[in-house]
Amino acid sequence: MASDPERPLAESNPFPAAVAGRLREQLTFLVEADRLKTVLRRSPLAAADRRENDAEHSWHLALMATVLAEYSDEPIEVGHVVQLVVVHDLVEIYAGDTFLYDDAMTATQAARETAAAGRLFGLLPAGQGARLRALWEEFEARQTPEARFARTLDRLEPTLLNWMARGGTWQTPGVTTADVRARTAVIADGSAALAELARVLIDESERRGWARPGPPGQ
Amino acid sequence: MASDPERPLAESNPFPAAVAGRLREQLTFLVEADRLKTVLRRSPLAAADRRENDAEHSWHLALMATVLAEYSDEPIEVGHVVQLVVVHDLVEIYAGDTFLYDDAMTATQAARETAAAGRLFGLLPAGQGARLRALWEEFEARQTPEARFARTLDRLEPTLLNWMARGGTWQTPGVTTADVRARTAVIADGSAALAELARVLIDESERRGWARPGPPGQ
Repeated sequence: MASDPERPLAESNPFPAAVAGRLREQLTFLVEADRLKTVLRRSPLAAADRRENDAEHSWHLALMATVLAEYSDEPIEVGHVVQLVVVHDLVEIYAGDTFLYDDAMTATQAARETAAAGRLFGLLPAGQGARLRALWEEFEARQTPEARFARTLDRLEPTLLNWMARGGTWQTPGVTTADVRARTAVIADGSAALAELARVLIDESERRGWARPGPPGQ
Repeated sequence: MASDPERPLAESNPFPAAVAGRLREQLTFLVEADRLKTVLRRSPLAAADRRENDAEHSWHLALMATVLAEYSDEPIEVGHVVQLVVVHDLVEIYAGDTFLYDDAMTATQAARETAAAGRLFGLLPAGQGARLRALWEEFEARQTPEARFARTLDRLEPTLLNWMARGGTWQTPGVTTADVRARTAVIADGSAALAELARVLIDESERRGWARPGPPGQ
C-alpha cells in the first residue's frame, strides 16, 4: 500500500461516489490519521524490543489521564484531557517527531508543526477542522489546567519507559542528567506529586549509571 | 526486556522504595498496559505494510469518536465514549485478540476476558480498579448510548482499514460477505448513517471482488 506522501492516503483508493460531502472529508482525515501509527518516537517500549510510535504513545497518555487524574494540582475535566492527548501529536504525521534532546530540530519545530496543522486539519469540514486545531493549540499553549496536565503526562510517559529500559533515550550520546532534568521540569506545571515521582526515578537512574551526570550536554 | 508473562512487567525493574502505596499500584498497572502495544489484530494498517496492534486501534477509535460523534443516533457525551474506547481492549493483554471470524475463539472469549479483567484491573487500587472495570463492562454490555456508539466505531474502524487494503481480513479463507455483513450489523445499533457507510463499502468491495460473495462460511 505504498503511497504518495504529498497526497491524502484515502486518494490511493477513493471511496465510492455514494460516500460524499462532509462524511467523505471526515473519512479522508481519519484514514490520513492512520499515518500516526508509522511515526516513530525515540522511546523504547517496556513490553517489546522496539521503539514506540505516536499512536501508541497517544493512547498510553489517554489511559494515564484516566488513572492519574487525581494528581493534577488543579481541578480538571478528565474527558477533556483525554481529547487533548488523542490529538496532540497528529501534526507529526507531516512534521515528524521532534526528539526532545535535539536542539536543532526543536528550533524549527513550531514552524513545521504549524504548517502541518494547516494541511492536516484542512482535510476536515471547516468548522470541525477549526475545532480539532483548537484542541491542538490548547495543548501547545498550556493555558488551561487540562493542557498543563496533558503536558505533564506527555513528559512523564517517556520517563516511565526510560526507567523500565534502564536508561533508554537518557543514554543518547551528549545527553546528561542536567538535560533530562531541564526537559522534564515541565511535569511540575501540572502536578507536584508526579514531578516528585520523576525526580525520584531520575535521581535513582543517575545513581545506578543509567543516566549520565554532568552539565547540559547540548 | 524479556519478561515473565505471569508477573507484572514492572516487577522486572521495580520502582525505588520511595514510590509507594497507591501511586506504585497505579504505575504498575500503567507499565503493564504497555503490553497492549504488542497485541496484534488481524487488520492491516492503511499507512504501512503490517498488522495493527490494540493500542493503535484504541487510539484510532478515540479519534473517530471525536470526529464522528455527530452520527450517533442518540445524544452522547463524547469524552465518555473516548474513555470507553481507551479501556475497551485492555483485557486482551492477557486474553489475546479474538478474530471476529474465528467462531471457536469467540465461544471462549467471554470467560477468558473476564478472568483477564480480574487480573489486570486488580493491579490498581481497589476503588479505581472497580471503576475501570466498570468502563470495560459498560462497553461490553452496550446498555448506554456511549457504549453502543463505541461498539459502532469498534466495527467501523476495521471496515475502513479493509476497504483501504482492498479486502484485508475479508479475504481470509472461509469468510464470505454474508459473514462480513453479519459481523458488522452491530454498527447499526449506534448509527444508521455509519451502518449505511459500511453497507456501501462492503457492497462495493463485493462488486470489485475484494470480498467473497456467498452464504456464511463458518
